[in-house]
Amino acid sequence: MISTKLTELLGIDHPVVSAPMGSVSGARLATAVTQAGGLGLVGVSYGDAAFIDEHVAQATKGGGVWGVGCVMFTFDERPGLWDKVLGYAPPVIALSFGDEDQVRRYVASAAESGAHVVVQVHDTEQAVVAVQAGASVLVAQGAEAGGHHKIRATLPLVPAVLDATQGAVPVVAAGGFADGRGLAAALALGADGVMMGTRFAVTEESLATSGFKNTLVSAAATDTVNTRAFDVVRGIPWDEVYQARSVSNDFTREWTGRDAELAARRSEIEPAWTAAVARDDTGQRALFAGEVLDLVTDVRPAASVVHDTVAEAEDILRRLAGRVRP
Amino acid sequence: MISTKLTELLGIDHPVVSAPMGSVSGARLATAVTQAGGLGLVGVSYGDAAFIDEHVAQATKGGGVWGVGCVMFTFDERPGLWDKVLGYAPPVIALSFGDEDQVRRYVASAAESGAHVVVQVHDTEQAVVAVQAGASVLVAQGAEAGGHHKIRATLPLVPAVLDATQGAVPVVAAGGFADGRGLAAALALGADGVMMGTRFAVTEESLATSGFKNTLVSAAATDTVNTRAFDVVRGIPWDEVYQARSVSNDFTREWTGRDAELAARRSEIEPAWTAAVARDDTGQRALFAGEVLDLVTDVRPAASVVHDTVAEAEDILRRLAGRVRP
Repeated sequence: MISTKLTELLGIDHPVVSAPMGSVSGARLATAVTQAGGLGLVGVSYGDAAFIDEHVAQATKGGGVWGVGCVMFTFDERPGLWDKVLGYAPPVIALSFGDEDQVRRYVASAAESGAHVVVQVHDTEQAVVAVQAGASVLVAQGAEAGGHHKIRATLPLVPAVLDATQGAVPVVAAGGFADGRGLAAALALGADGVMMGTRFAVTEESLATSGFKNTLVSAAATDTVNTRAFDVVRGIPWDEVYQARSVSNDFTREWTGRDAELAARRSEIEPAWTAAVARDDTGQRALFAGEVLDLVTDVRPAASVVHDTVAEAEDILRRLAGRVRP
Repeated sequence: MISTKLTELLGIDHPVVSAPMGSVSGARLATAVTQAGGLGLVGVSYGDAAFIDEHVAQATKGGGVWGVGCVMFTFDERPGLWDKVLGYAPPVIALSFGDEDQVRRYVASAAESGAHVVVQVHDTEQAVVAVQAGASVLVAQGAEAGGHHKIRATLPLVPAVLDATQGAVPVVAAGGFADGRGLAAALALGADGVMMGTRFAVTEESLATSGFKNTLVSAAATDTVNTRAFDVVRGIPWDEVYQARSVSNDFTREWTGRDAELAARRSEIEPAWTAAVARDDTGQRALFAGEVLDLVTDVRPAASVVHDTVAEAEDILRRLAGRVRP
């Protein structure tokens, strides 16, 4: 067991959080992580009522400290869905991708529900805003991450966020973590835990398809690309400051960097693309993955990810202390 | 004191290396770092006979374990300069930015001189080549770095390099490090030390101008940009896979992304640019700096950087071991 401000605040055993990934982090994954002693988050992302009623409802039955992750800018357009999420009384609500006004409103609303409020930030300015808004935990996410991120790298970002917020709240490091080496490094930087996405996406309990998992297991970091093509074809209004990292495939090779043309031809392209995704065509579907791909070489149970990560970090921390000589 | 495979191999006190930065890492900086117990490297980069005869000659008089850093692709065009470097019998030779053939030739030649050979790599493929060529130490450098780098981030790169080379030689982590938090994190990742550039560029002993140092002290990571403009205006034939990070200024705002036009108009632009650099015009000169800028807030003696980094890392490693509960 590694005790940190995060484990103490939330009352969890291990400072390991599974990222709330859309179409990946369902109730089964979140419950498995929570039951292993970490913090499991259901990813309701863009807000789908049926998904919430299935997965968030199911997560309430697993017991323990669990939570949901919401993409603020899309919830703003669907106010009923936010109330639906609050109705399940998640002990933790993780918020990401909102402007300053959205951060203030959603943090206040989530805190009023009694939840611990986790806010993901990508630079020091966002960190200061989130703390002022009342966040109880920050996630400092770097551009090594899979899916959506800004441009700062995790390693120099985490200490900069801690300095800018003067340690006001626990900081969870995200982007670039997949094992105990990463957890130990995050703690050394001053973080109070890690959030891992790609590693948990490639577990038995993840909702990701077998095509997705198998592709990620065999791909390397150098096979990834930052692209907006999947956002454009899906018609999701992401701010251009956020890129998304995916394993490159036929679709990214065809469309990356041609956002305007893809947007203009969306009604022509999107139906066939959606049909290809439905049949798990890995040449077409989004394969969001971080630079940790080199370290993700198998599909494993989520509990073993939690336990092995913590055990390896414990071993590293004990061993390193022995390297310090008077 | 923190003991690692690097300190044992080289016989140095501290696993801290100052990067061999061109126009920055002269004998005074290298000697200060070496005398503080780290490994100080003189940056002869593109190879200038007068610089070598002044700074490498002076470094031989400081005693201790010091070294030189050479950019392989430019030494290939100036064979006499390589022999000149070898003539000063540096105990350590650090090599960077070469193709597979250059790595094999320079590692063999440097090893034959009796030096410890340090090879900087930017992905796992380069790491495997460097070990096969006979490198005694690798530097795994991520894109958080200032100056020239490839695209991989340090945090996931370091463990990937260690896995790919199966720990055959000590690995020094570079890119994103400026303090003891970084050193402790690098050791947690499995590295045997850190190389720091930006932090040592902003020291009293660095050759950097006061305009450069003052700009870096007040700039933040978000003020940096990746640009090829300084390489193009100087006419240095960098492979396009290597970008360079600089604090943005009038010159980067005018020329970044316009490489072909700048190359075509070089004879017109370069003289005035060179004159501006000579008068330390920070609106025009290269201001190479890493994403650690948020953590670099003062101009200090290099010895205090070494000692404070190690003391902070020792404190972190002792404290973290206490967080592990049975």
